[in-house]
Amino acid sequence: MLAVQVGRPVELVAVLDRGPERAARADLSPGLIRMSGEAVVDDPAVQIVVEVLGREEPARTLIDRALVAGKPVVTANKEALAKHGTALFARAVAGRTPLLFEAAIGGGIPLFAALRSVRAANTITSFRGIVNGTTNYILSAMTEGGTAYADALAAAQRLGYAEADPTADVEGYDAAYKGCVLALVCFGIAVSPDMVARTGITGVTAADITAAHAAGEVIKLLAEGTREGETARVRVAPTRVPAASPLGATRANYNAVEIVGDAVGPVLLVGQGAGAAPTASAILADIRDAARVVLGAPPDPYFVTTGGRS
Amino acid sequence: MLAVQVGRPVELVAVLDRGPERAARADLSPGLIRMSGEAVVDDPAVQIVVEVLGREEPARTLIDRALVAGKPVVTANKEALAKHGTALFARAVAGRTPLLFEAAIGGGIPLFAALRSVRAANTITSFRGIVNGTTNYILSAMTEGGTAYADALAAAQRLGYAEADPTADVEGYDAAYKGCVLALVCFGIAVSPDMVARTGITGVTAADITAAHAAGEVIKLLAEGTREGETARVRVAPTRVPAASPLGATRANYNAVEIVGDAVGPVLLVGQGAGAAPTASAILADIRDAARVVLGAPPDPYFVTTGGRS
Repeated sequence: MLAVQVGRPVELVAVLDRGPERAARADLSPGLIRMSGEAVVDDPAVQIVVEVLGREEPARTLIDRALVAGKPVVTANKEALAKHGTALFARAVAGRTPLLFEAAIGGGIPLFAALRSVRAANTITSFRGIVNGTTNYILSAMTEGGTAYADALAAAQRLGYAEADPTADVEGYDAAYKGCVLALVCFGIAVSPDMVARTGITGVTAADITAAHAAGEVIKLLAEGTREGETARVRVAPTRVPAASPLGATRANYNAVEIVGDAVGPVLLVGQGAGAAPTASAILADIRDAARVVLGAPPDPYFVTTGGRS
Repeated sequence: MLAVQVGRPVELVAVLDRGPERAARADLSPGLIRMSGEAVVDDPAVQIVVEVLGREEPARTLIDRALVAGKPVVTANKEALAKHGTALFARAVAGRTPLLFEAAIGGGIPLFAALRSVRAANTITSFRGIVNGTTNYILSAMTEGGTAYADALAAAQRLGYAEADPTADVEGYDAAYKGCVLALVCFGIAVSPDMVARTGITGVTAADITAAHAAGEVIKLLAEGTREGETARVRVAPTRVPAASPLGATRANYNAVEIVGDAVGPVLLVGQGAGAAPTASAILADIRDAARVVLGAPPDPYFVTTGGRS
């Protein structure tokens, strides 16, 4: 499917990993494994770098190194983009080298594809979204099962939706990073993660949820951004929204992001926010686009949609 | 905004209209007006043709004429695409000439931008959507106000949401055309509008809506498509969906389209389905893309998102 859309086969030539054991589990040839990120980025056979390490470093350094070398980067790294997006995008623009990050927010939701379309004729005035599946799962369980926070968290951990240390999710750090990335691409304004007004969900009680329910509302952890002249504000907080709204109806591990354009009004995208297949779907879309740039291929599949079989 | 994204100014050089009076109302120079579509399409100064005539002819003929001449076409015409999409897309592909139609379904919702992204790594297995704002307005009024169908239709007509002859909307023809276009671009399979199992909303009663409400559901006019091997089925019918679902919560003049990919799962897009500004937003996005192809411009704004001010 990818080869047809790119016009040539796309080959995996190097993989950073801690050792050959995981590679064997993933059915990868041991010869593909490199023990350092630099060895991957600097490999002359590598024309596109896919960064899915997560965390700030060494990801940021490797992304920058790849861009300096003129190699398109596909990344899912919201923390690196939130903290260093301005510098990384400047590097990408200076070298006309693609920096693609569809998987960084909203898993398989084609958020940035949609945003690039809306931006053609709109100034984006605000956004808000459910961008963290772990907290949405916990809040949905509390809402629908009457479960206490601690029990819902434990269930999420058993199901693999929450990590053993859930701080990044439940305290809203993950949502704050995503809010900063959204502010950068929606408004063109950098907001430092330190500047985000951030409240997690650990203080949400069954009583809060009952009170919201009585008003026809549900509680969602929202990341919200507003543009105010030349500055932007990002806020992450548990927020009551109407139960009978598309955002209120976004349940469990689903994500939803609403962007508001001055011409189009609100546009909402909903889909699975995490999981191997949805995330791979977003990354493969970016690899396709990067590969077409590398090959100097005309933008055919973007401009003539000829069906789903390509 | 458009000039920055295209890299050069985009100029309006010819407009088809019935006479100079409407042009004057639209603040257009009378010198731009042409009295025949051929005069617009054949004008050597015209490099991109924007077709917003509606209906099958002469739109289809003019779209084809433009593509034969190698001029990219931006169209909002679901009827022409539903009936002649296979031939028109074949013409576009043969000449590598963009045929863009973001405004044909869902007004300003960046549906095809999203779909092109999802298609990179997914086979689309089904779709369903609220694609007709008029009927969604009427059904929402019946649901929320307890209004009878005839009264809700009359209100929609007073507000300009429904035409004097509402047949195309309320009998589901408009939704059927859109379902055929979606089948073509989601599945790559042509479905003739004659083959759509089509039921409108004229038979929906207050009792139906009350019965749905008692079950926690609302009635929406859905266009649904499923792929079955090498064939596709399209169905348009009033359908009960959970009130507390994103589709059920799509109210009034909003549209929503859900596409299901085999990797990403369901992806839903919601936004205003009609109106001057949302439709113009979609058309301008297509003009931007067409203009960049005409200029041989690199796909920069697609691949490096540098903010909303461009």
